[in-house]
Amino acid sequence: MDLPIVLNPQSTLPLHHQVYDALRCAILSGRLLPRQRLPSTRSLANSLNISRTTVTQSYDRLLSEGYLETIVGSGTYVCAQIPDDLLHAPALESPAASSPTPIQLSQYGQRLSQTPFALQAEPKAPISFRYGRPALQHFPMQVWRRLLARHCEHTADWLDYAIDFQGYLPLRQAIAHYLGRARAVQCHPDQIILTNGTQQALDLIVRLLMAPGMELALEDPGYLSARRIFLSHGVNLFPIPVDMSGLMVEKLVHHFAQIRLVYVTPSHQFPTGATLSLPRRLELLAWAQQTGALILEDDYDSEYRYGDRPMPALQGLDSHQSVIYIGTFSKVLFPALRIGYLVLPKPLVALFAQAKWLSDRQLPSLEQRVLTDFITTGHLESHIRKMRSHYDRLRQALVHCLKQQFGDRMTLFGEKAGLHLMVKLHTSLSDAEIVERAASAGVGLMPAHPQYLTPGDRGEFIFGYAELSAEQIQIGIDRLAKSLSI
Amino acid sequence: MDLPIVLNPQSTLPLHHQVYDALRCAILSGRLLPRQRLPSTRSLANSLNISRTTVTQSYDRLLSEGYLETIVGSGTYVCAQIPDDLLHAPALESPAASSPTPIQLSQYGQRLSQTPFALQAEPKAPISFRYGRPALQHFPMQVWRRLLARHCEHTADWLDYAIDFQGYLPLRQAIAHYLGRARAVQCHPDQIILTNGTQQALDLIVRLLMAPGMELALEDPGYLSARRIFLSHGVNLFPIPVDMSGLMVEKLVHHFAQIRLVYVTPSHQFPTGATLSLPRRLELLAWAQQTGALILEDDYDSEYRYGDRPMPALQGLDSHQSVIYIGTFSKVLFPALRIGYLVLPKPLVALFAQAKWLSDRQLPSLEQRVLTDFITTGHLESHIRKMRSHYDRLRQALVHCLKQQFGDRMTLFGEKAGLHLMVKLHTSLSDAEIVERAASAGVGLMPAHPQYLTPGDRGEFIFGYAELSAEQIQIGIDRLAKSLSI
Repeated sequence: MDLPIVLNPQSTLPLHHQVYDALRCAILSGRLLPRQRLPSTRSLANSLNISRTTVTQSYDRLLSEGYLETIVGSGTYVCAQIPDDLLHAPALESPAASSPTPIQLSQYGQRLSQTPFALQAEPKAPISFRYGRPALQHFPMQVWRRLLARHCEHTADWLDYAIDFQGYLPLRQAIAHYLGRARAVQCHPDQIILTNGTQQALDLIVRLLMAPGMELALEDPGYLSARRIFLSHGVNLFPIPVDMSGLMVEKLVHHFAQIRLVYVTPSHQFPTGATLSLPRRLELLAWAQQTGALILEDDYDSEYRYGDRPMPALQGLDSHQSVIYIGTFSKVLFPALRIGYLVLPKPLVALFAQAKWLSDRQLPSLEQRVLTDFITTGHLESHIRKMRSHYDRLRQALVHCLKQQFGDRMTLFGEKAGLHLMVKLHTSLSDAEIVERAASAGVGLMPAHPQYLTPGDRGEFIFGYAELSAEQIQIGIDRLAKSLSI
Repeated sequence: MDLPIVLNPQSTLPLHHQVYDALRCAILSGRLLPRQRLPSTRSLANSLNISRTTVTQSYDRLLSEGYLETIVGSGTYVCAQIPDDLLHAPALESPAASSPTPIQLSQYGQRLSQTPFALQAEPKAPISFRYGRPALQHFPMQVWRRLLARHCEHTADWLDYAIDFQGYLPLRQAIAHYLGRARAVQCHPDQIILTNGTQQALDLIVRLLMAPGMELALEDPGYLSARRIFLSHGVNLFPIPVDMSGLMVEKLVHHFAQIRLVYVTPSHQFPTGATLSLPRRLELLAWAQQTGALILEDDYDSEYRYGDRPMPALQGLDSHQSVIYIGTFSKVLFPALRIGYLVLPKPLVALFAQAKWLSDRQLPSLEQRVLTDFITTGHLESHIRKMRSHYDRLRQALVHCLKQQFGDRMTLFGEKAGLHLMVKLHTSLSDAEIVERAASAGVGLMPAHPQYLTPGDRGEFIFGYAELSAEQIQIGIDRLAKSLSI
C-alpha cells in the first residue's frame, strides 16, 4: 500500500500530527477509501522511519474522531461512513506542509485546499432515487454511432485545431435556432460560446467577472456544485430564500445594493422544482437593469415540463443585456459528452472567447460535428419529445406511489417539471435516520439539506426518477414507506 | 450589418472616440474581418442616433491609422492587412465602456481585455511551412473508427459522469506505462491528471500556484501560447536566454532568488529546437531543490528524435518532487482530440484534481476509452515509430534543400528533433519583407520573432515540415530562394 505520507523534519508540527494530517487528508480527498485497510502501526512506522508510538498516537486520534475503525483480530480500516459534515468542513492539509520543498499556493489554491470536497457520495442501493442523470439506457446509441462513423470515413479536416475561438460555427447556429424555437432565447450564433458543460461556463463567468470579496446572490437552497465554484473564488454569497414561485426577488430588491451577479435556476429551481413566476421574472430583470447586476440563468431541465406550457427564458424577456444564459446537453443527451454553452451579452463575447481559448482552446471536434448533425437532422427534438413522455409516466407513477403511501404525511414540491421532485416528510426522524432506514431496505435516498447554505435536518429529500422504471419506483416507495413506518 | 456599438452617454469619452474604440476593438478581436465593408457614415449615424460628423471623425481616424481603407466609388472597408503589431499591442475596449449597464471585470478579466490577442495568423499559401501540426493525413482513421464503434455497440456506462476526479483510470495507467518506457518518467497512475491538452494543464498550474506579481522564469525565445497564459494571470516574467544547449541555467542560478516556477521545453526547445544538456538538467534540478522553485517540464515533441537517443525526461532525474511534467496527444495523434496530462508531485495531486473537477469536471468519456484501447493494443507506439521515420525523411529533404539553396547564407537550429527546425537567414532583408516575398512566390513562412519577449527582426524563421511532402518541401525551398535571391 502506497500511502502518500511525506514528513517534513523542518516543520514545527510534531510528527504524530503530520501523520494524522496526511491520513485525514487522504481520507477526505478520497485517496483512502471507506473500508480500505491501513497498514499496521509497526509497518507504517518502519516505512516512515519513525517510532511506532508516533504512529499509534496518530491512529488513536483518527479512531476517536471517527475517521478510522478497528475490527478486532483484523486490523484498522477507514470508516465505512465518513460523516457528511467532515467532507465539507475541515481544511485539507496544505501541500506546503507535506512537501519536501514547501510549495506555495495562489489564493485560489489556498481556498481549494482549505475547503476540499469529496465527490458527492451517492447511494448505491438496488433502487436509488439519486438525481442528476437522464435515462441513459434510452439514449439513441445507434444514431450516434452512425453519425460518428460518418465523420470517420476518410481522413478529415476536423482532426486539426479549430479555427474558431467560440466553438464550431454550425453547432452554434444549430443551438441558436433550437434555443429560439424551444426557449424563446434571443440570440445570434455570434453570442454563443461552447463550453465543456455548465461547470466550465460558471467557472469562466466567475473568473472573468468576480474578484474575491465581491457579492453574489444565489438561491437558498440552491445547486451545490455551482456554490462550490463561487466559494472557490472567494466570492461573498448572499443567500436569497425560495418559495413556490422560485427566488424571492423582493428580498433581493430590498436588501442588497452591491450585488454583481445573481445565480438563478428559473425553469426548475434546484432542488425545490419551483418555476420562477412571470411577475418575479420581470421584477428581477428590472432590478438588474437598475443596479447593473448580471443575471446568470441556469436553464437546466427546461426541456422537461409536464402539463402546462414552458415559461420562456429570462434571457428572451431581457432588453438590456443583463442576462447570461447557460445551457447543457448533459441532461438531454448524456453527461460524459461535456458540451454546454453560454449565450452572452454582446459586449462580453470577445472577452469570454479569449478566456475560453486561454483555458483549454476548444472542445473536441468530432463530438461537436456529431452533435450538430444530431440537432440539424431533428434527432435532438424527437429524442426530447420521446423522453418527455417517458419521464412524465415515471413522474406520475412516483407521485401516485408517494400519495398512496404517505398521504398527508408529506408535501410534494416541484413535480411539474424536471427529472426529480422534492418531498418533505412530516416526521420526527432525523434525515440520517431516514437515509439509513431506506438504505437497509435497499432504497437509496438523497437528503436536500446539503443544498442549503445553513446545515441542519429538514426532512426534505430529492427523488430523482429518470433512471428508474415505473416498477422500480413502486417497489422503492413501498419499501421506503415500510422502513419508515410514518 | 450588426455592428456591436453601444454608446454610453455617461462616459467622459467623446462620442467619436467611443465609436472609434468600438470599431477598432471589433477589428482587433476579429468581429470585423479584413475586407469587410462598413456601413456608410450616414447609415451608421442614423442607426446610432448621432451626428454624421461624429461618425466621419471616427472613420477618419481609423483610416489614418490603417485600420480602414476606402475604395473610391465603393465605400469603406476593413483593411485587408492589419499590421501584426496592432494585433498584439493595443487594449481592447473594455466591456464596461460599451455596455448599457456597465460591466465590471475581475482583475483576470481586466488583464485579458487589456492585452487581447488574435488567433495567430497563419500563412495560407500553396506551400506553407507553418508549424504545430502533425501529418494528419497519416492518422490511422480506420483504427480509430473501429475503436469508436466498439464502444458504441450497446448502451454503455461511459455515457454517465465519470466517478474519477483525475480522469479514466485505465487511461492513466496506460499513460504511466508509456511514459515510464518511452520517457523514463517515474510516475504512478495516481500522480496523473488528465487535461484538455497542454493549454489547460498550464492554466491549472498558474491558477493554483501563482498570484499576480509572483515571478516565473521562462525561455526566451519561448512558446508564445504558454506566455499568454502566464501574462493573463499577471505573473512577472523573467526571460532566460537559450543557446545550443537549451535554457542557460546559470543565468537563473546567479540572478534570481524569488522565482517560483520555471517553464522549460527540454526535449526540443521551442522554437530553437535545442536539447537541454544533461549537465544543465542536473544544475536546474539542484537549483530547484535549493530554492524550492517548481519546474514545469513541457515535453512536447519528445517522441520525435532523429539519430541520437532521446534524453530522459527531467522528471525522471528528479528525486525531490520539483518537477511538474506536461504531455499531450495533440502532436502524436491529433490536436482536436484535446487530451493531455499532468504528472504531479504527490502533494499536489489532490489539489489539482479538485481544481480540474471544479473547472469542467472531466474529459469526454468516449475519447478516453478509445485512446486507452489505442495505447494498450500497441497502436500508439507503432504509429509514433512509423511517423518518426516519415518525419525523418521530410527533415532530411528540408535540410538538404536549405543547404543546397542557401549554403552558408543561413544557420540551422534544432534539426535533430521535433516537427520543425529554425533557420537564421543572413540577409539585410527585414522579416516582413522576407515573409512578403515568400508569400508572393506561394510560400507561407512564419518568423520566429513573436516567440521572443522583446520585439524586433531577427531573420529567424520556423520551418514546420510535418504537413508537407518531400516534393512540396523541395518546390517550396526553391521558390523561396528565388524570391529572396540572397
